Amino acid sequence: MPIITLTTDFGLKDHFAGAVKGAIYTELPDAKIVDITHLISPFNITETAYIIKNSYKSFPKGTIHIIGVDSELSNTNKHIALLLDEHYFICPDNGLISMIASAINPTKIVEINIHDRIESSFPVLDVFVKVACFIARGGTLDVIGREISDYKKMIEIQPKVNQAQTIISGGVIYIDNYGNVISNISKKVFNDIGKGRDFIVTARGYTFTKIFNKYNEITGDSDTNYGFDGSRLALFNSAELLEIAIYRSNLNTVGGASSLLGLDYRDTITVEFINKPLPEFTPLN
Amino acid sequence: MPIITLTTDFGLKDHFAGAVKGAIYTELPDAKIVDITHLISPFNITETAYIIKNSYKSFPKGTIHIIGVDSELSNTNKHIALLLDEHYFICPDNGLISMIASAINPTKIVEINIHDRIESSFPVLDVFVKVACFIARGGTLDVIGREISDYKKMIEIQPKVNQAQTIISGGVIYIDNYGNVISNISKKVFNDIGKGRDFIVTARGYTFTKIFNKYNEITGDSDTNYGFDGSRLALFNSAELLEIAIYRSNLNTVGGASSLLGLDYRDTITVEFINKPLPEFTPLN
Amino acid sequence: MPIITLTTDFGLKDHFAGAVKGAIYTELPDAKIVDITHLISPFNITETAYIIKNSYKSFPKGTIHIIGVDSELSNTNKHIALLLDEHYFICPDNGLISMIASAINPTKIVEINIHDRIESSFPVLDVFVKVACFIARGGTLDVIGREISDYKKMIEIQPKVNQAQTIISGGVIYIDNYGNVISNISKKVFNDIGKGRDFIVTARGYTFTKIFNKYNEITGDSDTNYGFDGSRLALFNSAELLEIAIYRSNLNTVGGASSLLGLDYRDTITVEFINKPLPEFTPLN
Repeated sequence: MPIITLTTDFGLKDHFAGAVKGAIYTELPDAKIVDITHLISPFNITETAYIIKNSYKSFPKGTIHIIGVDSELSNTNKHIALLLDEHYFICPDNGLISMIASAINPTKIVEINIHDRIESSFPVLDVFVKVACFIARGGTLDVIGREISDYKKMIEIQPKVNQAQTIISGGVIYIDNYGNVISNISKKVFNDIGKGRDFIVTARGYTFTKIFNKYNEITGDSDTNYGFDGSRLALFNSAELLEIAIYRSNLNTVGGASSLLGLDYRDTITVEFINKPLPEFTPLN
Repeated sequence: MPIITLTTDFGLKDHFAGAVKGAIYTELPDAKIVDITHLISPFNITETAYIIKNSYKSFPKGTIHIIGVDSELSNTNKHIALLLDEHYFICPDNGLISMIASAINPTKIVEINIHDRIESSFPVLDVFVKVACFIARGGTLDVIGREISDYKKMIEIQPKVNQAQTIISGGVIYIDNYGNVISNISKKVFNDIGKGRDFIVTARGYTFTKIFNKYNEITGDSDTNYGFDGSRLALFNSAELLEIAIYRSNLNTVGGASSLLGLDYRDTITVEFINKPLPEFTPLN
Repeated sequence: MPIITLTTDFGLKDHFAGAVKGAIYTELPDAKIVDITHLISPFNITETAYIIKNSYKSFPKGTIHIIGVDSELSNTNKHIALLLDEHYFICPDNGLISMIASAINPTKIVEINIHDRIESSFPVLDVFVKVACFIARGGTLDVIGREISDYKKMIEIQPKVNQAQTIISGGVIYIDNYGNVISNISKKVFNDIGKGRDFIVTARGYTFTKIFNKYNEITGDSDTNYGFDGSRLALFNSAELLEIAIYRSNLNTVGGASSLLGLDYRDTITVEFINKPLPEFTPLN
């Protein structure tokens, strides 16, 4: 029995998530349901894509992912089900898939057409659960929808590179639980463009000339971590994206990178490459 | 093995919910536990009733619902277990059941009397878990309590109708994750009293002459939803209750109906019916 | 198949908790995973110890507890796995275990040494999940690490007793979902030192001469609870620790002990014992 995951903007207080789980168990008593999150900011598709991209691969092949964000059916917001990278996704056709599938094409997409009788203000419960349970029982996508060859494209704010290949200009796509500020500049793009050159990362006037791979690399070989608490650093995070962090931050007490450096969703982060090592001034960080 | 659900005001940080799950698994290794919510406002029985009413029916018949809100045992707050609509509920006798069971009478109610040895400041862990596991193993209610014929009544703030049957006066019973404001005026009461007449819904000075069945009906046949963001609307929600909403709201950014219209728990919402179509002024909405 | 529990500071919005669950199910399709909490304050070891101490015993023997708080590997922060009180714990060696294990010595501790290939900024996913699944399949600790005889000690702020044995001076270690303020003064220490004498509990100028065992003992034999709402009280809570509470509190509306009495994490709470009953003034509470 495959796993069914839930990613929604329902929040954790309302009855919505509970009702959806009850409906799944009613159809499939042996279902295995995993909450990815119910705390997506209402209607925020970029956030949804970030969360899904960074969690779906940890699940076994064949897992069915229900995505309930901005999912009300309309002429401009169809419901789709698809197979991508050997995982199933059931979601609205609102651009989300183009952000998740930027590197991999879906194997098959169908526009769900089991709505004939169902006019609903709660489509995750009334439609997505039915589709998920059908797939979980071994049903094929063809039965629940009409195959389509395309889906709505929404270009995730992609980093831009200048013609001289000296500057990558990216943006903040997510702020995590620790206040860490995550950009859309991937380690791959950084390496492809940088080719080992020295560089300066700039975020709201703050500069960084080194990018770590773990938070506590900032402490070097010191015997204790604690002198470094509150230091700012750039690193490639576990999603392999350039992140600006404060070492051992806490948004509720000492603050994090978002609050202390004043960085917010969609702000600009740039990387400037330098052909030679920095000549005459000492590292800024 | 039936499902055991949890609905509490424990919050999600403290050890309470984890300890309760551990205790269930210790007694019943094959238990299937589902969190409905742990974010009920402390001691709020109306909220609890709203959440339970709108989620329990999605679960399979025979599901056992543990309700841990205001559950400390006292002379005036007995513990009860009951069978209602083929679901089991284990909860304090604090009026909650009268709100859930307004349309359906419980099949059987017992006052739990297995407390002889248990004096506890954590009755959900020490008493409700034992009762739930006993029922899950097939035990009958008679063994864990003494049958009673009555339970505490608490009249949920019910909407009132005037003698002329022209005005329904209701109140706000819940505000959801999107800031949508939910009243106690059901679609059934609205239709029974209204009998198809025109009407004006009024909430804090804002008026509505149309009630939608889905949020995006407000966009009509337009090709895009986005011009309607932030519009206010009335609809019958998935619980079939009259709701005041802001289209595509977000309490943390643009606001929702509760914050933008200044509506709060217990505020008044009225429906006035008009015998003829509105004569000389254009729709207010 | 033993249960695997998760206690982290990941929060509930980010992809971290979902990714960890996916990774466990990928290795162990029949795993049973229980969230204890993901809302530990970032890097807060005292809070983690309080939550774990008060929940782990409710789980069956053999349960595997993954603790993902301040878990980045460094020279000063090793990863350990241990058997304690017939439960397995996988966590950083950051002092946490000394707070959980104050009364019981671990049966066996190993320093995890499967990191050879794994340099990670997400060690819970990359290391702890592997160790947990290995143990769940029946693997022994020796295979995943080198036995060590000691672990980092961090003295939990312990209450102090004066030489005359008349005053216990403790501190606030946790504030719960209701705003209740929990001290490190246990019922056992209170009884051992107090030996039945009268006493005055003092917290930020507020005094208490009685300690209840249930919240609603404050209502005595009255027929209704409601006159007592908002009263302050001292009690031994379900963790058998001295707690200062407000009867039927709600941090979001009427306030709780933390907000109303101005008590915070690490504040002092004292108990003064009196050899004879209080002579000339009436109880202060």
